[in-house]
Amino acid sequence: MQRAGGAEQDGLRSITCLVTGGVGFIGSNLVHTLVALGATVRVVDALVAGHGGDIRNVAGVDVDVLTTGIGDPAVADLVDGADIIFNLAGQVSHTASMSDPLADLELNAVDHARLLETIRRVNPEVRVVHASTRQVYGRVATLPADELTAANPVDVNGVAKLAGEQLHMVYAQAYGLRATSLRLSNVYGPRQRLTSNELGFLPVFIRKALLNETIEIFGDGSQRRDCLHVDDVVHALLTATDERAVGRIYNVGNQRDHPLSEIAAMIVAAAESDHGVQYVPWPLDHQRIDIGSFRTDSHRIREELGWSSSTELSDGVKQTVAFYRENPWYLSSI
Amino acid sequence: MQRAGGAEQDGLRSITCLVTGGVGFIGSNLVHTLVALGATVRVVDALVAGHGGDIRNVAGVDVDVLTTGIGDPAVADLVDGADIIFNLAGQVSHTASMSDPLADLELNAVDHARLLETIRRVNPEVRVVHASTRQVYGRVATLPADELTAANPVDVNGVAKLAGEQLHMVYAQAYGLRATSLRLSNVYGPRQRLTSNELGFLPVFIRKALLNETIEIFGDGSQRRDCLHVDDVVHALLTATDERAVGRIYNVGNQRDHPLSEIAAMIVAAAESDHGVQYVPWPLDHQRIDIGSFRTDSHRIREELGWSSSTELSDGVKQTVAFYRENPWYLSSI
Repeated sequence: MQRAGGAEQDGLRSITCLVTGGVGFIGSNLVHTLVALGATVRVVDALVAGHGGDIRNVAGVDVDVLTTGIGDPAVADLVDGADIIFNLAGQVSHTASMSDPLADLELNAVDHARLLETIRRVNPEVRVVHASTRQVYGRVATLPADELTAANPVDVNGVAKLAGEQLHMVYAQAYGLRATSLRLSNVYGPRQRLTSNELGFLPVFIRKALLNETIEIFGDGSQRRDCLHVDDVVHALLTATDERAVGRIYNVGNQRDHPLSEIAAMIVAAAESDHGVQYVPWPLDHQRIDIGSFRTDSHRIREELGWSSSTELSDGVKQTVAFYRENPWYLSSI
Repeated sequence: MQRAGGAEQDGLRSITCLVTGGVGFIGSNLVHTLVALGATVRVVDALVAGHGGDIRNVAGVDVDVLTTGIGDPAVADLVDGADIIFNLAGQVSHTASMSDPLADLELNAVDHARLLETIRRVNPEVRVVHASTRQVYGRVATLPADELTAANPVDVNGVAKLAGEQLHMVYAQAYGLRATSLRLSNVYGPRQRLTSNELGFLPVFIRKALLNETIEIFGDGSQRRDCLHVDDVVHALLTATDERAVGRIYNVGNQRDHPLSEIAAMIVAAAESDHGVQYVPWPLDHQRIDIGSFRTDSHRIREELGWSSSTELSDGVKQTVAFYRENPWYLSSI
């Protein structure tokens, strides 16, 4: 991995970090890294059922966890005195955002306004790195999508996440809050919730292959996606604490993309699954919010901060499969 | 005025319209026109203090007004059986959006999700035209801003309005809701709330000139804006009921823009004010969310639907000043 700027380079021994959503997939991987680097880590996580948070994700790690939402005034105590806030809390299911739009708006936008108000009041100098998603782009006019491509979200999740990141930028602009937002691509790796079919295609593919079940792909599998190993995301989050990133939005994607058919084949091979892939017609409700092939242009973060993804998909998939073989409870109980 | 497509051309004698925010500035002007064209008109308006709604705006007009927010389940009765919903309800003050971000998110985004859910349940075939704002663009990379320019809002109002319009597009895409959203430029004309300093520069300029007070302009007045007479906006709203506009966002601006100094001078001349314009330094809180010159590219609505603005600013200002001379209560009590 490259080591360019940001908190990682400087060492974290005297640093206090607050990680919101810190027992979820990306959050818990970040917490493991932060603690290993010597940081003092605080976590707030609402542990909403089905959102991917599980306290076992941080088992054995020296970290304090407050179980509540980021809009809770009690979070002020964790914000106070923090040097960096990694703001990863949110709802990530696109289908859930359509069945309960109000909850998604609340968790991905309104609660972030509450947190930003808390930060402004309690600790206006803190560094804030927010996790957004490439889902904000939706179905765009031209690919690859860079940060100047007009967002056209196709689900409530994309609308609410975009509002959440824009709130960070407004607070940076209007109040000098030192905030950055990263639009993360399709993330996979250890500590991801695998049992749901609603949290993206990667955990579903991985679960099916590990359980020796057939992976179903809607359509012909020619749609392309770029996949990011969670280690690369953790590295991007640390890199984004660089002072040059204040007030900026960055795409965080893998420069290499693959058709879904190829991604599935790699996962099947890594898991040594006897069952391959089956191509099935699109369900109507999925087709309506499908965006076809998608490619992120991440040149801004590469050029401005020196970050790029370093995990090849085939390597990342092998490492991920090995993790779940060693931690089989992810296949059934999270 | 041009007559191109949409409800206006077809006549409205057998049409039932619901206008949300229908006793506010734009809403009440629309209601006057709809009733004159023979439509049956229902209005819902929360009459939130300071937002510009005043029941006197529709005095003498045959219309039923329900005083509540658009998120209220009681609105279902008004949605039921409507042919067209003009969804104009919202909070329009940029400064208020910064002092109470949660209220702005609620009124401009979350309540619209509630209304869209009501529409989906009660009357999924209804035509919906939503009023958004050029404020969603904020400080963009290139001017003029067209609909493919990435939004970069500089205040919570811009964030929340963008979420509100995107929700309409998501519901159009995912559920076939027949929704359109218009990004309106700086609107002026009769029935605007003049007494607040927080609802845009045009009503402030008009009030000051009518009261024979000096107009203060921040900076040197060289910033350019395009101004839209409310009659042009009403025409755009009617035009946007055209079936070709379903699932589309349109800029609605005046092709001619002017520096603020020139706009102020026109208003001073029309009002025959003895006091002119004074240029003062920028207050810090305004400067931080200022966007410099701004210009909208409205070619999409011109080319696709045939709408363009038809009121010259000098004519519109004269007509507007005459209206407020005849209705002086706007200068003191709204």
